Amino acid sequence: MQEIKRKHTRLIHLGNIPIGGGAPVSIQSMLSVKTANLENAIKQIQELESVGCDIIRCAVMDLDDAKAIKELKIMAKAPLVADIHFNYRLALAAIENGVDGLRINPGNIGKIEGVKALVAAAGERNIPIRIGVNSGSLPKDLLQKYGVSAKSMVESALRHIRILEELNYYEIKVSVKASSIPLTLESYRLLSNACNYPLHLGVTEAGTIFRGSIKSSIAMGILLEEGIGDTIRVSLTDNPVQEVKVAKEILTALGLRNGLNIISCPTCGRTGIDLIKLATEVEKALEPYINHPLTIAVMGCAVNGPGEAKEADFGIAGGIKEGLIFAEGKVLKKVPETSLVTELVALVKDYISNH
Amino acid sequence: MQEIKRKHTRLIHLGNIPIGGGAPVSIQSMLSVKTANLENAIKQIQELESVGCDIIRCAVMDLDDAKAIKELKIMAKAPLVADIHFNYRLALAAIENGVDGLRINPGNIGKIEGVKALVAAAGERNIPIRIGVNSGSLPKDLLQKYGVSAKSMVESALRHIRILEELNYYEIKVSVKASSIPLTLESYRLLSNACNYPLHLGVTEAGTIFRGSIKSSIAMGILLEEGIGDTIRVSLTDNPVQEVKVAKEILTALGLRNGLNIISCPTCGRTGIDLIKLATEVEKALEPYINHPLTIAVMGCAVNGPGEAKEADFGIAGGIKEGLIFAEGKVLKKVPETSLVTELVALVKDYISNH
Repeated sequence: MQEIKRKHTRLIHLGNIPIGGGAPVSIQSMLSVKTANLENAIKQIQELESVGCDIIRCAVMDLDDAKAIKELKIMAKAPLVADIHFNYRLALAAIENGVDGLRINPGNIGKIEGVKALVAAAGERNIPIRIGVNSGSLPKDLLQKYGVSAKSMVESALRHIRILEELNYYEIKVSVKASSIPLTLESYRLLSNACNYPLHLGVTEAGTIFRGSIKSSIAMGILLEEGIGDTIRVSLTDNPVQEVKVAKEILTALGLRNGLNIISCPTCGRTGIDLIKLATEVEKALEPYINHPLTIAVMGCAVNGPGEAKEADFGIAGGIKEGLIFAEGKVLKKVPETSLVTELVALVKDYISNH
Repeated sequence: MQEIKRKHTRLIHLGNIPIGGGAPVSIQSMLSVKTANLENAIKQIQELESVGCDIIRCAVMDLDDAKAIKELKIMAKAPLVADIHFNYRLALAAIENGVDGLRINPGNIGKIEGVKALVAAAGERNIPIRIGVNSGSLPKDLLQKYGVSAKSMVESALRHIRILEELNYYEIKVSVKASSIPLTLESYRLLSNACNYPLHLGVTEAGTIFRGSIKSSIAMGILLEEGIGDTIRVSLTDNPVQEVKVAKEILTALGLRNGLNIISCPTCGRTGIDLIKLATEVEKALEPYINHPLTIAVMGCAVNGPGEAKEADFGIAGGIKEGLIFAEGKVLKKVPETSLVTELVALVKDYISNH
């Protein structure tokens, strides 16, 4: 199989997570609770970590949020990024409280003195800054010149980049998010040609888990397969835990991350069992093993199932009242339909503990 | 915005639906009930048509299924494709009963006399044949030579194609489905270079609605954006109605089909309302208008919402207990949170009936 050839970008570090320079594509999400609400924030950080979130962003809207970072850092294993709008003082406070990264646009935080103070503090601790351009908040002069376009998005990003570069600061990553897929693609392609900083991919306002997963999968799928993108965030109008699950599935499907691959056939006139229920149960039961590079097949038909899914490490094929357990296309045993899932899970668990 | 430049393929017709030659990308699905079970089959056909399925496939496993097509054709508006394995007689029976298309691999149906009879009957009625190669059932000699690879997939497809071409039959479309995304991409790219027939895109055994939507969106998103693909089927271990909804969303997101675009921001520390619930309600309430090319925004925050979503035709922004209704970035009115959705739907309905 052809491997994805990733574009070589500058390597930066967000806490212990490398980004760019060929490092694995990392997964980000964002707290949906107020950062200063310590109990909720810690709970959500732990939930996100447990599903494999590499980097966690939180909104810093006031000094309470900035101060909370100190407490959160005690519990959090994943690096924390403070998301700040228009206020370099909050960024300074976040740095003082031990944040690992910033998302702030230096062109929007007021006087150059503020930017200088911010860059000096970030530089001291090697804290990267993400420049985050959004199609919904482009500067007026660019909108007048180029409208809502890839050119406006990238020019806006480059302006912010130049401010940091003039201060000799290069610990940068960049995003140019739009809610339209064609605009997202065009903007990231243009940006990828225009600079060598690692890119943070995202589709903004992507929608509910249904629409948002589809849009994010298309946009990130296309860009990542072209080699563009060093870290991703799937934005969903849903629990951020879902964002991480979708992101992992995108990376696994593209072969960019090891993970459990569950395949299952569509139901058809030939299916004698409730395959939708069975596949959903298997998906749920195997969630604890989601980081293991195994392919598991859930097939509707005992006659063709094992053969069609011979690439699968393990699989089950439903029949009428009883089903088959198979491995690499070979039938291991016949079991009652009701114990198909438990037998499969036992097999997977066993295999993992022996390898 | 850059438009997708689609590869020019041969134009064929499946009933009244053009495929290839620059025709709009059509959406297919498959009955999950037995074809001969008329009551269930008709119900499912109507459900699929109501959500916008252009072409409906059904398994023809015996003569009862083949005969049922005659009855189904009375009710069905969408063209019907008979899916047949290894048996040209069933294909002949399906043709006699008025089917619009066939999915059958001519290399697998026995003697050349059978293929000749089949092609003669199909030719008389201008019925296209889809050659459907699947990574799970490749011929042994190719597996020995090239393993499970794009080369095996495409060589297998070309063998079937050559059989039809030698009989001067060119009403062909082709699919090369795999459950692995990289293999799917490589196979379709190779196939697209190797022939000029319209291509039917699909990822086989893609999985549940969660995993399957993601995998299909990635694979079809990448191929369609490259200009490859004339008709698509999203395979899900779920109700086929869901397959059509996912397919429509993929095409709409890529700008290949007109449709409702619902954007909504992720919840964050700034959100004061239950945005997940709100966005899900809006998505459901607007389902009847899914074919209209409108962008609707569901924003969590009254301060930034209308401005950030100024590209949206209509939108709502939640506040505390009350929210805003806006259009193209301009606030129309303030309403209680409980009537946000009904007011938005009324506005959309009104707009559509006046345009």
